[in-house]
Amino acid sequence: MSTPPSDRTRVKRYNWLANYDHDTIAAILDAIPHCTIGYVVDGKPLVTPTMHWREGDRVYWHGSAASRMITAIEGAEVCLTASVIDGLVMARSAYNFNINHRSVMVFGKPEKVTDPDEKEAHLRTFVNRLIAGQWERLRPMLPKELKATTVLSMPFDEASAKIRTGHPEDEADDYAFPVWAGVIPIRQQVLDPVADPRNLPDVKLPPEALAFRF
Amino acid sequence: MSTPPSDRTRVKRYNWLANYDHDTIAAILDAIPHCTIGYVVDGKPLVTPTMHWREGDRVYWHGSAASRMITAIEGAEVCLTASVIDGLVMARSAYNFNINHRSVMVFGKPEKVTDPDEKEAHLRTFVNRLIAGQWERLRPMLPKELKATTVLSMPFDEASAKIRTGHPEDEADDYAFPVWAGVIPIRQQVLDPVADPRNLPDVKLPPEALAFRF
Repeated sequence: MSTPPSDRTRVKRYNWLANYDHDTIAAILDAIPHCTIGYVVDGKPLVTPTMHWREGDRVYWHGSAASRMITAIEGAEVCLTASVIDGLVMARSAYNFNINHRSVMVFGKPEKVTDPDEKEAHLRTFVNRLIAGQWERLRPMLPKELKATTVLSMPFDEASAKIRTGHPEDEADDYAFPVWAGVIPIRQQVLDPVADPRNLPDVKLPPEALAFRF
Repeated sequence: MSTPPSDRTRVKRYNWLANYDHDTIAAILDAIPHCTIGYVVDGKPLVTPTMHWREGDRVYWHGSAASRMITAIEGAEVCLTASVIDGLVMARSAYNFNINHRSVMVFGKPEKVTDPDEKEAHLRTFVNRLIAGQWERLRPMLPKELKATTVLSMPFDEASAKIRTGHPEDEADDYAFPVWAGVIPIRQQVLDPVADPRNLPDVKLPPEALAFRF
Protein backbone atom coordinates (compact mmCIF):
# COMPACT_ATOMS: atom_id res chain seq x y z
CA MET A 1 0.00 0.00 0.00
CA SER A 2 1.53 3.30 -1.05
CA THR A 3 0.50 6.93 -0.66
CA PRO A 4 1.18 9.26 -3.60
CA PRO A 5 3.37 12.18 -2.43
CA SER A 6 1.74 15.57 -1.88
CA ASP A 7 3.57 18.80 -2.56
CA ARG A 8 4.90 18.84 0.99
CA THR A 9 5.87 15.21 1.32
CA ARG A 10 7.65 14.92 -2.01
CA VAL A 11 11.26 14.58 -0.96
CA LYS A 12 13.38 16.92 -3.05
CA ARG A 13 16.95 16.20 -2.01
CA TYR A 14 18.32 12.66 -2.26
CA ASN A 15 14.92 11.67 -3.62
CA TRP A 16 16.23 8.19 -4.38
CA LEU A 17 16.17 7.64 -0.62
CA ALA A 18 12.53 8.58 -0.33
CA ASN A 19 9.86 6.07 0.42
CA TYR A 20 6.16 6.71 0.64
CA ASP A 21 5.10 3.17 1.39
CA HIS A 22 2.49 2.98 4.16
CA ASP A 23 4.03 -0.07 5.84
CA THR A 24 7.51 1.46 5.82
CA ILE A 25 6.20 4.62 7.45
CA ALA A 26 4.30 2.56 10.05
CA ALA A 27 7.42 0.46 10.77
CA ILE A 28 9.59 3.55 11.33
CA LEU A 29 6.94 5.16 13.56
CA ASP A 30 6.92 1.93 15.59
CA ALA A 31 10.70 1.59 15.75
CA ILE A 32 11.32 5.17 16.92
CA PRO A 33 9.06 6.07 19.86
CA HIS A 34 10.19 9.70 20.06
CA CYS A 35 9.53 12.57 17.68
CA THR A 36 9.31 16.31 17.42
CA ILE A 37 6.09 18.22 16.81
CA GLY A 38 6.54 21.33 14.69
CA TYR A 39 3.83 23.99 14.82
CA VAL A 40 3.36 27.67 14.20
CA VAL A 41 2.58 30.31 16.84
CA ASP A 42 2.19 33.94 15.69
CA GLY A 43 3.74 33.00 12.37
CA LYS A 44 6.85 31.57 14.01
CA PRO A 45 7.98 27.95 14.23
CA LEU A 46 8.13 25.97 17.46
CA VAL A 47 9.42 22.41 17.71
CA THR A 48 8.68 20.34 20.82
CA PRO A 49 10.14 16.87 21.43
CA THR A 50 7.69 14.24 22.65
CA MET A 51 6.89 10.51 22.53
CA HIS A 52 4.41 9.02 20.08
CA TRP A 53 2.81 5.69 19.37
CA ARG A 54 0.92 4.25 16.42
CA GLU A 55 -2.46 2.55 16.36
CA GLY A 56 -3.59 1.37 12.95
CA ASP A 57 -3.43 4.22 10.45
CA ARG A 58 -2.98 6.98 13.02
CA VAL A 59 -0.12 8.33 15.10
CA TYR A 60 -0.86 9.42 18.69
CA TRP A 61 0.85 11.55 21.30
CA HIS A 62 -0.17 13.11 24.58
CA GLY A 63 0.62 16.04 26.79
CA SER A 64 -0.59 18.19 29.60
CA ALA A 65 -3.89 19.81 28.64
CA ALA A 66 -2.35 23.12 29.78
CA SER A 67 0.88 22.91 27.77
CA ARG A 68 1.78 25.39 25.05
CA MET A 69 2.22 22.64 22.47
CA ILE A 70 -1.15 21.04 23.18
CA THR A 71 -3.17 24.26 23.30
CA ALA A 72 -1.52 25.63 20.15
CA ILE A 73 -1.97 22.64 17.87
CA GLU A 74 -5.46 21.22 18.19
CA GLY A 75 -6.90 21.58 14.71
CA ALA A 76 -3.81 23.44 13.45
CA GLU A 77 -1.26 22.22 10.93
CA VAL A 78 1.62 20.29 12.45
CA CYS A 79 4.64 18.44 11.14
CA LEU A 80 5.58 15.35 13.17
CA THR A 81 9.16 14.27 12.49
CA ALA A 82 10.58 11.05 13.90
CA SER A 83 14.22 10.40 13.14
CA VAL A 84 17.02 8.16 14.31
CA ILE A 85 20.68 8.10 13.34
CA ASP A 86 22.09 4.65 12.62
CA GLY A 87 25.65 5.50 11.67
CA LEU A 88 28.28 7.96 10.55
CA VAL A 89 29.21 7.41 6.90
CA MET A 90 32.91 8.20 6.49
CA ALA A 91 33.27 8.92 2.80
CA ARG A 92 36.47 9.73 0.92
CA SER A 93 35.53 13.41 0.59
CA ALA A 94 33.89 15.76 3.08
CA TYR A 95 31.22 16.43 0.46
CA ASN A 96 30.06 12.82 0.58
CA PHE A 97 30.18 12.44 4.37
CA ASN A 98 26.74 11.30 5.38
CA ILE A 99 24.53 9.90 8.10
CA ASN A 100 22.77 6.56 7.97
CA HIS A 101 19.32 7.26 9.30
CA ARG A 102 15.65 6.47 9.26
CA SER A 103 13.17 9.30 9.37
CA VAL A 104 9.50 10.01 8.86
CA MET A 105 7.64 13.29 8.37
CA VAL A 106 3.87 13.34 8.88
CA PHE A 107 1.74 16.38 8.05
CA GLY A 108 -1.76 16.93 9.32
CA LYS A 109 -4.14 18.53 11.75
CA PRO A 110 -4.29 16.70 15.08
CA GLU A 111 -7.63 15.78 16.59
CA LYS A 112 -8.28 15.49 20.30
CA VAL A 113 -9.65 12.23 21.74
CA THR A 114 -12.65 13.50 23.70
CA ASP A 115 -14.26 10.36 25.15
CA PRO A 116 -12.59 9.64 28.56
CA ASP A 117 -12.78 5.84 28.18
CA GLU A 118 -11.27 6.02 24.73
CA LYS A 119 -8.59 8.38 26.00
CA GLU A 120 -7.71 5.99 28.82
CA ALA A 121 -7.57 3.06 26.38
CA HIS A 122 -5.07 4.94 24.19
CA LEU A 123 -2.88 5.85 27.18
CA ARG A 124 -2.96 2.20 28.25
CA THR A 125 -1.78 1.19 24.79
CA PHE A 126 1.03 3.75 25.01
CA VAL A 127 2.28 2.48 28.40
CA ASN A 128 1.87 -1.20 27.56
CA ARG A 129 3.78 -0.78 24.29
CA LEU A 130 6.72 0.47 26.33
CA ILE A 131 6.46 -2.32 28.94
CA ALA A 132 3.92 -5.09 28.43
CA GLY A 133 1.26 -5.22 31.15
CA GLN A 134 2.67 -2.24 33.04
CA TRP A 135 -0.61 -0.26 32.98
CA GLU A 136 -2.30 -2.99 35.04
CA ARG A 137 0.52 -2.95 37.62
CA LEU A 138 0.39 0.82 38.22
CA ARG A 139 -1.68 2.78 40.68
CA PRO A 140 -4.87 3.31 38.62
CA MET A 141 -5.29 6.61 36.83
CA LEU A 142 -7.45 9.17 38.64
CA PRO A 143 -10.26 11.03 36.83
CA LYS A 144 -8.49 14.36 37.47
CA GLU A 145 -5.28 12.99 35.94
CA LEU A 146 -7.15 11.81 32.88
CA LYS A 147 -8.79 15.22 32.61
CA ALA A 148 -5.41 16.98 32.81
CA THR A 149 -4.07 14.86 29.93
CA THR A 150 -4.81 15.52 26.28
CA VAL A 151 -4.42 12.75 23.73
CA LEU A 152 -4.03 13.82 20.11
CA SER A 153 -3.88 11.82 16.93
CA MET A 154 -3.68 12.25 13.19
CA PRO A 155 -3.60 9.93 10.22
CA PHE A 156 -0.29 9.41 8.48
CA ASP A 157 -1.71 9.54 4.98
CA GLU A 158 0.30 12.66 4.17
CA ALA A 159 3.71 11.38 5.10
CA SER A 160 7.11 10.44 3.76
CA ALA A 161 9.99 8.32 4.94
CA LYS A 162 13.69 8.57 4.25
CA ILE A 163 16.13 5.75 4.87
CA ARG A 164 19.86 5.65 4.23
CA THR A 165 21.89 2.55 4.92
CA GLY A 166 25.23 1.12 3.92
CA HIS A 167 28.59 2.38 2.79
CA PRO A 168 29.67 5.72 1.31
CA GLU A 169 28.72 6.62 -2.22
CA ASP A 170 31.82 8.38 -3.40
CA GLU A 171 32.60 10.00 -6.73
CA ALA A 172 33.99 7.38 -9.14
CA ASP A 173 37.49 8.90 -9.14
CA ASP A 174 37.63 9.11 -5.36
CA TYR A 175 37.76 5.34 -4.89
CA ALA A 176 41.43 5.61 -5.86
CA PHE A 177 42.10 8.18 -3.12
CA PRO A 178 44.09 6.58 -0.28
CA VAL A 179 41.88 7.20 2.74
CA TRP A 180 39.97 4.76 4.95
CA ALA A 181 36.23 4.81 4.25
CA GLY A 182 33.38 3.01 5.92
CA VAL A 183 30.61 3.30 8.47
CA ILE A 184 30.64 3.77 12.24
CA PRO A 185 27.34 2.25 13.42
CA ILE A 186 25.38 3.99 16.17
CA ARG A 187 22.53 2.50 18.11
CA GLN A 188 20.32 3.18 21.10
CA GLN A 189 21.42 0.99 23.97
CA VAL A 190 19.09 0.13 26.85
CA LEU A 191 20.97 -0.48 30.10
CA ASP A 192 19.95 -2.44 33.19
CA PRO A 193 17.03 -0.97 35.15
CA VAL A 194 17.98 0.98 38.28
CA ALA A 195 15.59 0.60 41.23
CA ASP A 196 14.22 3.69 42.98
CA PRO A 197 15.76 3.65 46.49
CA ARG A 198 12.28 4.45 47.79
CA ASN A 199 10.83 1.15 46.48
CA LEU A 200 8.96 -0.97 49.04
CA PRO A 201 11.18 -3.88 50.15
CA ASP A 202 9.05 -6.61 48.56
CA VAL A 203 8.40 -5.15 45.05
CA LYS A 204 10.06 -6.96 42.17
CA LEU A 205 11.13 -5.72 38.75
CA PRO A 206 8.58 -7.06 36.26
CA PRO A 207 10.42 -9.34 33.81
CA GLU A 208 8.66 -7.48 30.97
CA ALA A 209 10.78 -4.41 31.82
CA LEU A 210 13.85 -6.35 30.69
CA ALA A 211 12.31 -6.57 27.21
CA PHE A 212 12.12 -2.76 26.93
CA ARG A 213 13.71 -1.62 23.69
CA PHE A 214 14.16 1.89 22.45
CA MET B 1 26.47 33.76 32.32
CA SER B 2 22.73 33.58 32.01
CA THR B 3 20.25 34.81 29.39
CA PRO B 4 16.91 36.11 30.66
CA PRO B 5 14.06 34.15 29.04
CA SER B 6 12.08 35.76 26.24
CA ASP B 7 8.39 35.13 25.77
CA ARG B 8 9.16 32.16 23.52
CA THR B 9 11.94 30.57 25.53
CA ARG B 10 10.21 30.79 28.90
CA VAL B 11 9.45 27.16 29.66
CA LYS B 12 5.86 26.87 30.82
CA ARG B 13 5.44 23.20 31.76
CA TYR B 14 7.74 21.66 34.33
CA ASN B 15 9.40 25.03 34.59
CA TRP B 16 11.49 23.77 37.51
CA LEU B 17 13.42 21.76 34.90
CA ALA B 18 14.18 24.83 32.81
CA ASN B 19 17.64 26.26 32.54
CA TYR B 20 18.68 29.34 30.63
CA ASP B 21 22.34 29.24 31.51
CA HIS B 22 24.57 29.93 28.52
CA ASP B 23 27.15 27.28 29.43
CA THR B 24 24.47 24.63 29.95
CA ILE B 25 22.98 25.37 26.54
CA ALA B 26 26.44 25.25 24.94
CA ALA B 27 27.22 21.94 26.68
CA ILE B 28 23.99 20.33 25.45
CA LEU B 29 24.56 21.63 21.90
CA ASP B 30 28.04 20.06 22.04
CA ALA B 31 26.87 16.76 23.53
CA ILE B 32 24.07 16.21 20.98
CA PRO B 33 25.34 16.68 17.41
CA HIS B 34 21.92 16.22 15.78
CA CYS B 35 18.89 18.48 15.85
CA THR B 36 15.75 19.41 13.99
CA ILE B 37 15.21 22.72 12.24
CA GLY B 38 11.63 23.96 12.37
CA TYR B 39 10.55 26.57 9.84
CA VAL B 40 7.42 27.89 8.19
CA VAL B 41 6.51 27.56 4.51
CA ASP B 42 3.22 29.07 3.33
CA GLY B 43 2.12 29.37 6.95
CA LYS B 44 2.69 25.68 7.62
CA PRO B 45 5.35 24.05 9.78
CA LEU B 46 8.17 21.91 8.42
CA VAL B 47 10.73 20.13 10.58
CA THR B 48 13.93 18.79 9.03
CA PRO B 49 16.48 16.69 10.94
CA THR B 50 20.11 17.67 10.47
CA MET B 51 23.49 17.81 12.25
CA HIS B 52 24.81 20.93 13.95
CA TRP B 53 27.95 22.11 15.64
CA ARG B 54 28.80 25.01 17.92
CA GLU B 55 31.52 27.60 17.57
CA GLY B 56 31.67 30.15 20.37
CA ASP B 57 28.29 31.79 20.85
CA ARG B 58 26.78 30.50 17.61
CA VAL B 59 25.30 27.23 16.39
CA TYR B 60 26.05 26.13 12.80
CA TRP B 61 24.58 23.69 10.35
CA HIS B 62 24.91 23.06 6.64
CA GLY B 63 23.00 21.70 3.71
CA SER B 64 22.73 21.58 -0.03
CA ALA B 65 22.33 25.10 -1.38
CA ALA B 66 19.38 23.74 -3.41
CA SER B 67 17.51 22.06 -0.55
CA ARG B 68 14.06 23.12 0.57
CA MET B 69 15.20 23.70 4.13
CA ILE B 70 18.15 25.88 3.16
CA THR B 71 16.31 28.00 0.61
CA ALA B 72 13.32 28.51 2.93
CA ILE B 73 15.13 29.60 6.06
CA GLU B 74 17.83 32.11 5.24
CA GLY B 75 16.79 35.22 7.16
CA ALA B 76 13.52 33.61 8.30
CA GLU B 77 12.57 32.59 11.81
CA VAL B 78 13.61 29.07 12.76
CA CYS B 79 13.46 26.94 15.87
CA LEU B 80 16.43 24.60 16.31
CA THR B 81 15.66 21.80 18.76
CA ALA B 82 18.32 19.35 19.92
CA SER B 83 17.11 16.61 22.21
CA VAL B 84 18.32 13.30 23.56
CA ILE B 85 16.55 10.74 25.72
CA ASP B 86 18.59 9.40 28.63
CA GLY B 87 16.11 7.04 30.25
CA LEU B 88 12.58 5.82 30.81
CA VAL B 89 11.29 6.86 34.23
CA MET B 90 9.00 4.12 35.52
CA ALA B 91 6.87 5.87 38.10
CA ARG B 92 4.20 4.30 40.32
CA SER B 93 1.38 5.85 38.28
CA ALA B 94 1.01 6.31 34.52
CA TYR B 95 0.52 10.02 35.17
CA ASN B 96 4.05 10.33 36.54
CA PHE B 97 5.75 8.18 33.89
CA ASN B 98 8.44 10.35 32.41
CA ILE B 99 11.52 10.56 30.24
CA ASN B 100 14.96 11.56 31.43
CA HIS B 101 16.26 13.87 28.74
CA ARG B 102 18.37 16.83 27.78
CA SER B 103 17.02 19.29 25.26
CA VAL B 104 17.70 22.74 23.89
CA MET B 105 15.52 25.08 21.84
CA VAL B 106 17.16 27.97 20.00
CA PHE B 107 15.15 30.66 18.22
CA GLY B 108 16.58 33.00 15.63
CA LYS B 109 17.12 33.98 12.03
CA PRO B 110 19.97 32.05 10.43
CA GLU B 111 22.64 33.91 8.49
CA LYS B 112 24.56 32.47 5.58
CA VAL B 113 28.35 32.32 5.67
CA THR B 114 29.23 34.01 2.38
CA ASP B 115 33.04 34.08 2.32
CA PRO B 116 34.28 30.80 0.74
CA ASP B 117 37.38 30.53 2.96
CA GLU B 118 35.31 31.10 6.06
CA LYS B 119 32.77 28.56 4.85
CA GLU B 120 35.47 25.97 4.29
CA ALA B 121 36.94 26.68 7.75
CA HIS B 122 33.55 26.04 9.36
CA LEU B 123 33.05 22.79 7.45
CA ARG B 124 36.53 21.69 8.51
CA THR B 125 35.59 22.37 12.13
CA PHE B 126 32.41 20.31 11.67
CA VAL B 127 34.25 17.29 10.24
CA ASN B 128 37.17 17.48 12.65
CA ARG B 129 34.83 17.69 15.65
CA LEU B 130 33.38 14.35 14.54
CA ILE B 131 36.80 12.76 13.93
CA ALA B 132 39.95 14.68 14.82
CA GLY B 133 42.13 15.46 11.83
CA GLN B 134 39.80 13.78 9.35
CA TRP B 135 39.44 16.86 7.10
CA GLU B 136 43.18 16.76 6.34
CA ARG B 137 43.00 13.05 5.41
CA LEU B 138 40.13 13.46 2.93
CA ARG B 139 40.24 14.20 -0.78
CA PRO B 140 40.29 18.03 -0.69
CA MET B 141 37.01 19.86 -1.22
CA LEU B 142 36.42 21.13 -4.75
CA PRO B 143 35.30 24.71 -5.41
CA LYS B 144 32.06 23.44 -7.00
CA GLU B 145 31.35 21.34 -3.89
CA LEU B 146 31.93 24.32 -1.63
CA LYS B 147 29.63 26.37 -3.85
CA ALA B 148 26.88 23.74 -3.65
CA THR B 149 27.04 23.76 0.16
CA THR B 150 25.40 26.41 2.31
CA VAL B 151 26.59 26.99 5.87
CA LEU B 152 24.16 28.74 8.19
CA SER B 153 24.56 29.95 11.73
CA MET B 154 22.73 31.82 14.42
CA PRO B 155 23.50 32.95 17.94
CA PHE B 156 21.95 31.02 20.79
CA ASP B 157 21.08 34.06 22.85
CA GLU B 158 17.37 33.31 22.58
CA ALA B 159 17.43 29.75 23.85
CA SER B 160 16.34 27.49 26.64
CA ALA B 161 17.43 24.11 27.95
CA LYS B 162 15.49 21.43 29.76
CA ILE B 163 17.10 18.62 31.69
CA ARG B 164 15.45 15.82 33.64
CA THR B 165 17.49 13.27 35.53
CA GLY B 166 16.97 10.78 38.31
CA HIS B 167 14.18 8.74 39.79
CA PRO B 168 10.40 9.15 39.55
CA GLU B 169 8.70 11.93 41.41
CA ASP B 170 5.53 10.24 42.55
CA GLU B 171 2.62 11.60 44.54
CA ALA B 172 3.35 11.29 48.28
CA ASP B 173 0.67 8.61 48.81
CA ASP B 174 1.87 6.54 45.86
CA TYR B 175 5.15 5.58 47.53
CA ALA B 176 3.08 3.06 49.52
CA PHE B 177 1.71 1.48 46.34
CA PRO B 178 3.33 -1.94 45.76
CA VAL B 179 4.85 -1.57 42.28
CA TRP B 180 8.48 -1.54 41.18
CA ALA B 181 9.66 1.96 40.28
CA GLY B 182 12.93 3.20 38.87
CA VAL B 183 14.75 4.21 35.73
CA ILE B 184 15.78 2.29 32.63
CA PRO B 185 18.81 4.20 31.27
CA ILE B 186 19.18 4.66 27.52
CA ARG B 187 22.30 5.80 25.74
CA GLN B 188 23.75 6.17 22.28
CA GLN B 189 26.22 3.39 21.65
CA VAL B 190 28.95 3.68 19.04
CA LEU B 191 29.94 0.31 17.59
CA ASP B 192 33.15 -0.77 15.88
CA PRO B 193 33.82 0.88 12.50
CA VAL B 194 33.00 -1.25 9.45
CA ALA B 195 35.38 -0.87 6.49
CA ASP B 196 34.00 -0.16 3.03
CA PRO B 197 34.76 -3.29 0.94
CA ARG B 198 35.96 -0.93 -1.79
CA ASN B 199 38.81 0.44 0.40
CA LEU B 200 42.28 0.32 -1.13
CA PRO B 201 44.24 -2.60 0.36
CA ASP B 202 46.76 -0.42 2.22
CA VAL B 203 44.48 2.21 3.86
CA LYS B 204 44.23 2.07 7.64
CA LEU B 205 41.49 3.14 10.01
CA PRO B 206 42.70 6.37 11.64
CA PRO B 207 42.94 5.74 15.40
CA GLU B 208 41.01 9.01 15.92
CA ALA B 209 37.92 7.28 14.46
CA LEU B 210 37.89 5.02 17.51
CA ALA B 211 37.37 8.08 19.69
CA PHE B 212 34.17 9.00 17.83
CA ARG B 213 31.33 9.57 20.30
CA PHE B 214 27.78 10.44 19.57
